Amino acid sequence: MNIDMITAAAERARGHIRRTPLLSSPFLDDIAGRRVLVKPECLQHTGSFKARGAWSAVSALEPTQLQAGVIAFSSGNHAQGVAHAAREHGASAVIIMPSDAPRAKIDNTRGLGAEVVLYDRATEDRDEIGERMAAERGLTLIKPFDDPQVIAGQGTTGLEIAEQADEAGVDTADVLVCCGGGGLTSGIALALEAKAPGLRPRPAEPEGFDDVARSLAVGSIQRNPRLTGSICDAIITPQPGNLTFPIMARLCGPGVTVTEDQALHAMALAFHRLKLVLEPGGAVALAAALFRPEAVQGDAVIAVASGGNVDADLFASALARFAP
Amino acid sequence: MNIDMITAAAERARGHIRRTPLLSSPFLDDIAGRRVLVKPECLQHTGSFKARGAWSAVSALEPTQLQAGVIAFSSGNHAQGVAHAAREHGASAVIIMPSDAPRAKIDNTRGLGAEVVLYDRATEDRDEIGERMAAERGLTLIKPFDDPQVIAGQGTTGLEIAEQADEAGVDTADVLVCCGGGGLTSGIALALEAKAPGLRPRPAEPEGFDDVARSLAVGSIQRNPRLTGSICDAIITPQPGNLTFPIMARLCGPGVTVTEDQALHAMALAFHRLKLVLEPGGAVALAAALFRPEAVQGDAVIAVASGGNVDADLFASALARFAP
Repeated sequence: MNIDMITAAAERARGHIRRTPLLSSPFLDDIAGRRVLVKPECLQHTGSFKARGAWSAVSALEPTQLQAGVIAFSSGNHAQGVAHAAREHGASAVIIMPSDAPRAKIDNTRGLGAEVVLYDRATEDRDEIGERMAAERGLTLIKPFDDPQVIAGQGTTGLEIAEQADEAGVDTADVLVCCGGGGLTSGIALALEAKAPGLRPRPAEPEGFDDVARSLAVGSIQRNPRLTGSICDAIITPQPGNLTFPIMARLCGPGVTVTEDQALHAMALAFHRLKLVLEPGGAVALAAALFRPEAVQGDAVIAVASGGNVDADLFASALARFAP
Repeated sequence: MNIDMITAAAERARGHIRRTPLLSSPFLDDIAGRRVLVKPECLQHTGSFKARGAWSAVSALEPTQLQAGVIAFSSGNHAQGVAHAAREHGASAVIIMPSDAPRAKIDNTRGLGAEVVLYDRATEDRDEIGERMAAERGLTLIKPFDDPQVIAGQGTTGLEIAEQADEAGVDTADVLVCCGGGGLTSGIALALEAKAPGLRPRPAEPEGFDDVARSLAVGSIQRNPRLTGSICDAIITPQPGNLTFPIMARLCGPGVTVTEDQALHAMALAFHRLKLVLEPGGAVALAAALFRPEAVQGDAVIAVASGGNVDADLFASALARFAP
C-alpha cells in the first residue's frame, strides 16, 4: 500500500466518483469551540463512501474478471457500492445478504442491478454459499475493507480532504473518521501522510464497539465483545483488518468514542445546520467533533461523515429528540 | 444586467460562496423517465441560494456603505443570507422581521450576528420602520430579488450549472428553478444564455401561487391572488419583479407548477435518494422534474433545489407520508 495506489485509484474514478464538498456552519463551530469542517460522504453515489472503494476494486479488475462478474457479502452500504460499481462497468454482481436485512437495503441493492442472494443467518453458512457461487461462476470477491484496492479507493477521500483543507486555510487539525474495519480510516491516513502531514487521522467509534481504539491503545488487534445491538450498524465489524490495522497503528492518533445519543444529536444538528442526512454510524465522527471537544486538539477539526442510509423512522426520532 | 456582472459577482464570491455539486440517483431517473440532475443550494451557506445574492450585493458596496451597515426585510432565507454576508464583511446588519416569524429563523438570523427588529404585522408598517432606521443610520437596503447585484449573485448558480452539465455530458435540457420573485430564475437565465444556450431555464411554482407562470403566459406582470397558506412560503412573493420579469419573459420557457403534496413527496425522495434536506419551496423544481414529466422536454432535466430551511416536524411528516 502506498500513495501511488491511491492517486491511481483517483485517476480511475475521475468522472465516476463524486468530489464531495467540505461543509461548515458557524453554529457547529460555536458548539465545538473550534472550526468544524465536515466531509459529507453521504452525498457520494449510493449514499456512502463505500462507492469509492468498490469503484477502485472493480475498475482494477482484468476484462476476463469483469466478464465473469463479482460477488460481495454485505447487509448494507458495501452491497450498494459494489452493485453500483459493477453495473457501471457492465459487470454482473452477486450480493449475499442476510434474509433479515432491512427491506429497503435489499430493494436498493436489487434496484442497482445486483443479484441478491438471501441466506438464513441461523441455519446457513454465508461463506459456504459465497464460495460455492464464486467457484461455479468464476466470480471475484470484493472484500469490504481488507483489500489494497478498496483501501486505495477510500483513500481518495483523503486526497480531497488534503486539497480542501488547504483551500480552507487549515494545515493542522485532527481528522475524525467513522471507523468500522478501518478501510476508510487507513486509506485517508495514507493519503494525508503524503499530501497533508499536519492533518492527523483518528478513528471515531460508538461506545462499546471501540475495537479499533482499543487495538491502537494496546498495539495489537482486539475484538468487539459483541456485534449487534448498536444503531451504528453501518460501522460495526468484529475487529480491524489485517491490512488496515498496521497502517492505522503507524499513522493514526488515538481513537475517540461517542455515545449513541451523541450520534443521534449530531444527526439532528447535521439536518438543521448542514442540510445533510446522516445515518447514526455516519454521524459518529461529527458527534466526536461536537461533543468530545476535550479529546480533540487544534483550532480546527475535520469530521468525515461516512454515510446517510438511514430509515425515515429513526431519522425522525432523532429530530424529535434533539432540537437545534 | 449582463453576463459580465455575473462573472464579476462570481469573482467576488470566490472562496466565500460554495460551489455546490450536481447530484443524481438512478432511482430518481427511473421515476422521471429521464436523467435528473439536482443542484442542491440547500448546501449553500445559510441553507439557501440567498447567500449568493446577498454576498454579491454586500461585496459590491463602497467602504463607507459597509461602515454604515445594511438593512433588509425578510422573514426567512434572505434574512440569513444578508446577515451572513454582512458579518463576513465586518458590516452590521439590521433585519426587519415580523414578530410571528418562526422562532428558529429569528434565532438563526440573530445567531449570524444581525440586529433583528421585530414588528407587528397587524399594527405596524414595516416599510416605515425600515425607512426611519435606514435614514437615521445611513443603512443601505439589500432587496431580496429586484436588484441588479442580487440577480448577478444568484446567476453564479447558472455559471456552475453550465460547467457541471457540460461535465455530465448534458448540453440540452430544461433547467427547472424554484421561483418566487424571480431573482434566481432570471440570474440563471442570463448565465445560461451566455454559457449554455442549449439549457432552457423554466420557473417552477406551487399551484395557486403561479404568478410567474401566468405572467410569462400573458406577457405582463400578474399578481398572486393570495400570499399566505402555502407550505412553500420560501418562494411566495406578490408578483415577479420589475427587473426580473423582462429577463424571464425574454429567456425563460413556460412555467411549470406542482401540488404541495408533490413538493412533500420530492422532499422525501431527496432524503432517501440524495441524502439532502429540502424545504417545501426548495423542492418544487425537483417535484416538477419527477412528477410532471409530460411538461418537460429532453433526455435530461436539471432541477435547482433552492433551500433546505425546514422545521423538523414538517420534514418528519413528509417522510411519514411518502415512502421511497
